[in-house]
Amino acid sequence: MRMYDIIAKKRDGNELSEQEIQFFIDGYVKGNIPDYQASALMMAIYLHGMTEQETANLTMCMARSGEMVDLSSIDGVKVDKHSTGGVGDKTTLIIAPIVASLGVRVAKMSGRGLGHTGGTVDKMESIPGMKTDLDRKTFFNIVRKVGVSVIGQSGNLVPADKKLYALRDVTATIESIPLIASSIMSKKIAAGSDCILLDVKTGSGAFMKTVEDSIQLAKAMVSIGEHVGRRTVALITDMDRPLGSAIGNSLEICEVCETLKNRGPKDLTAICVELAANMLFLAGHGELSTCRELAKAQISNGAAFQKLREMVAAQGGDVSVLDDNSKFAQAAVRREIKARKTGFIHAMNTEQCGIASVELGAGREKKEDPIDYCAGIILQKKVGDQVKAGETIATFYTSSEQKCNEAEQLFQNAVTIGTEPPASVPLLHARVTKDGVEQH
Amino acid sequence: MRMYDIIAKKRDGNELSEQEIQFFIDGYVKGNIPDYQASALMMAIYLHGMTEQETANLTMCMARSGEMVDLSSIDGVKVDKHSTGGVGDKTTLIIAPIVASLGVRVAKMSGRGLGHTGGTVDKMESIPGMKTDLDRKTFFNIVRKVGVSVIGQSGNLVPADKKLYALRDVTATIESIPLIASSIMSKKIAAGSDCILLDVKTGSGAFMKTVEDSIQLAKAMVSIGEHVGRRTVALITDMDRPLGSAIGNSLEICEVCETLKNRGPKDLTAICVELAANMLFLAGHGELSTCRELAKAQISNGAAFQKLREMVAAQGGDVSVLDDNSKFAQAAVRREIKARKTGFIHAMNTEQCGIASVELGAGREKKEDPIDYCAGIILQKKVGDQVKAGETIATFYTSSEQKCNEAEQLFQNAVTIGTEPPASVPLLHARVTKDGVEQH
Repeated sequence: MRMYDIIAKKRDGNELSEQEIQFFIDGYVKGNIPDYQASALMMAIYLHGMTEQETANLTMCMARSGEMVDLSSIDGVKVDKHSTGGVGDKTTLIIAPIVASLGVRVAKMSGRGLGHTGGTVDKMESIPGMKTDLDRKTFFNIVRKVGVSVIGQSGNLVPADKKLYALRDVTATIESIPLIASSIMSKKIAAGSDCILLDVKTGSGAFMKTVEDSIQLAKAMVSIGEHVGRRTVALITDMDRPLGSAIGNSLEICEVCETLKNRGPKDLTAICVELAANMLFLAGHGELSTCRELAKAQISNGAAFQKLREMVAAQGGDVSVLDDNSKFAQAAVRREIKARKTGFIHAMNTEQCGIASVELGAGREKKEDPIDYCAGIILQKKVGDQVKAGETIATFYTSSEQKCNEAEQLFQNAVTIGTEPPASVPLLHARVTKDGVEQH
Repeated sequence: MRMYDIIAKKRDGNELSEQEIQFFIDGYVKGNIPDYQASALMMAIYLHGMTEQETANLTMCMARSGEMVDLSSIDGVKVDKHSTGGVGDKTTLIIAPIVASLGVRVAKMSGRGLGHTGGTVDKMESIPGMKTDLDRKTFFNIVRKVGVSVIGQSGNLVPADKKLYALRDVTATIESIPLIASSIMSKKIAAGSDCILLDVKTGSGAFMKTVEDSIQLAKAMVSIGEHVGRRTVALITDMDRPLGSAIGNSLEICEVCETLKNRGPKDLTAICVELAANMLFLAGHGELSTCRELAKAQISNGAAFQKLREMVAAQGGDVSVLDDNSKFAQAAVRREIKARKTGFIHAMNTEQCGIASVELGAGREKKEDPIDYCAGIILQKKVGDQVKAGETIATFYTSSEQKCNEAEQLFQNAVTIGTEPPASVPLLHARVTKDGVEQH
């Protein structure tokens, strides 16, 4: 078999066999196939696409390129969850405790924030003492004992994806549905859970800007999951506005606590109930409507918050900051941002809000940048709200006035105020399962 | 400007600007743009194509990447000629003397043979003493004095093409009309002549297997030439059978001499008259029909042969072998190849005939292989000829019986004998000028 012939076959629009994909992935990871051949193949795949079978084969070959986490020693159904990334997206830390409090096992590896999007691992690390770099044995033991553990990505998981993604990133071949789908799903499959819930964000703050594209990506990922025997459901959720009111690490942990204490923002609570219900559905806890009621009950009865406390304690975190959020370190500089005119908030460009929060210190532009855990934004007003000129729409938390100035300009430009109330946009756009697409 | 954006633009099917192409070629030649970005762009160009303007811009940027030969110090119209390569293609050494004997200047750089195709430089070097690595000054002086000189490609001509072609060769992006056209034309333009005659070979022994593809390539090349102010004409000629009767270096020089002495094979003579007439036409010697008569006359009156002698003498070659071909070194082993059955020769797979001649020692598989100048094949019978079983159809010339055995098997498999006479195929399929395509 020759890489040349594999490139030529895909170039001519033909379907690659499993053996051919295996040959490519093996050779590329080992360094026998050079980058310039891999990038020619990536461009041919970008332009011709891949069949469902090809995409599933690529995903499995990538997943098997490194460590495959084996969760079989942990009893019960293991359900994983993945979000394509957003601004203010703290759902993992809300829904994982909800479902774990009902016996579903969550052994989750999460990422760090980069660019305008935040990362669950950074949010967790804003809790004093919290460890996210647990070894496999400790990680598994916490899942067994507590039911849930969330750690950083570790070990040699899917080296093929690491290498290919870096190449695609510099050769304009990122935005390909089969390549994005196989990249995400290879990591989820290598992480070992039985079922996978996908939260595909759509809108100005998301990787996928339109509902149609998001549905295409969701369908490709659900198809991969079902092809390889992992029950998979995807929700298309809105990221045309930040999720909840808090953007920034310890600010978001406070909002997680508020939500699990049943006094969180309505939008965040609603979407978390929907996500948790789908995880319960995947784990076999009955009809979706039943699962929804189960999830709500675990918030109102305090069981989900209790589960979060247990997980934080097991991972070495200081639970007192969860019980009393005022114990978190406080930002030195605090500024109220005022509405420039009277009217209704029509839009908050989510990517720009995310970039403003990075300016305040809540995120990083480059991998090695430090994070200011108490920096960020609390939105007093959200899309659809009526505001008066001079009224506070947000509060900034940061370490210097200069950062505030730069972030304020970005933030003000991200906010559009109109004279009429805007049309309302659903939080949940669609649900994609192996049976098809339910539009909302 | 970023290479990433250039790749993305072409990936999306858009036309690249001259500045973008310049940025790519400059950066790639300097090593600032890595192979993996260049190969992604090549695949995007392969799949989306390029407009005529883009192809012309790419050609000029490549041509300017190295030395641009300046022939302005040589009086008269300089006409270059390029063949896409074939088996038994010795036309350059026939037509260049014909047109030079009429005052057209030919300052030509030719290639060496590789794989199944031969090269003019190797053929010339079968003449004892003949030099093909002349410096620019000597080369120019011979063109001034004799009117024609043919040398090997030298100097830093079109380094962008060298680097890009090597990359395309391993990334399945060779067979793209705009990329082939710009590769060929960049070298012709850098070589400095005013007009260019292209001989696009078509058929089993050629790079382009169908007349349609050959016409597409010819149109692309003529368009480039006219875009950049070089008068260009292309002939689509047949390479579904070897050209003439001789394959192999000194054997072909003998056939060149025979043809210029007006006793060469009919097919070869006819195609050379057509090619020479088009060079004269480009140089402004009148209507094509007039040019055809001029070319024929220079063969019959001996002036063209005399011009070949002058050129060989000027380049240090022993002209006595031209006057008396029996003075060429003779092959140690000679074998007559017999027809396996009675009938009509329907086909001679030209590529296979070429490979058989390489087996005999006439060509090289790898660049560094040595050549046996007296090895090769003389075809006693050609496509269309009637043969009896056991009758000689070809004679092999080589250095060992073992080579003969291997080559005979290849050659016999290349020959198809049928019971009925085959349909006749024209030698000249089409002529492509800036005014359009004349099919023959």
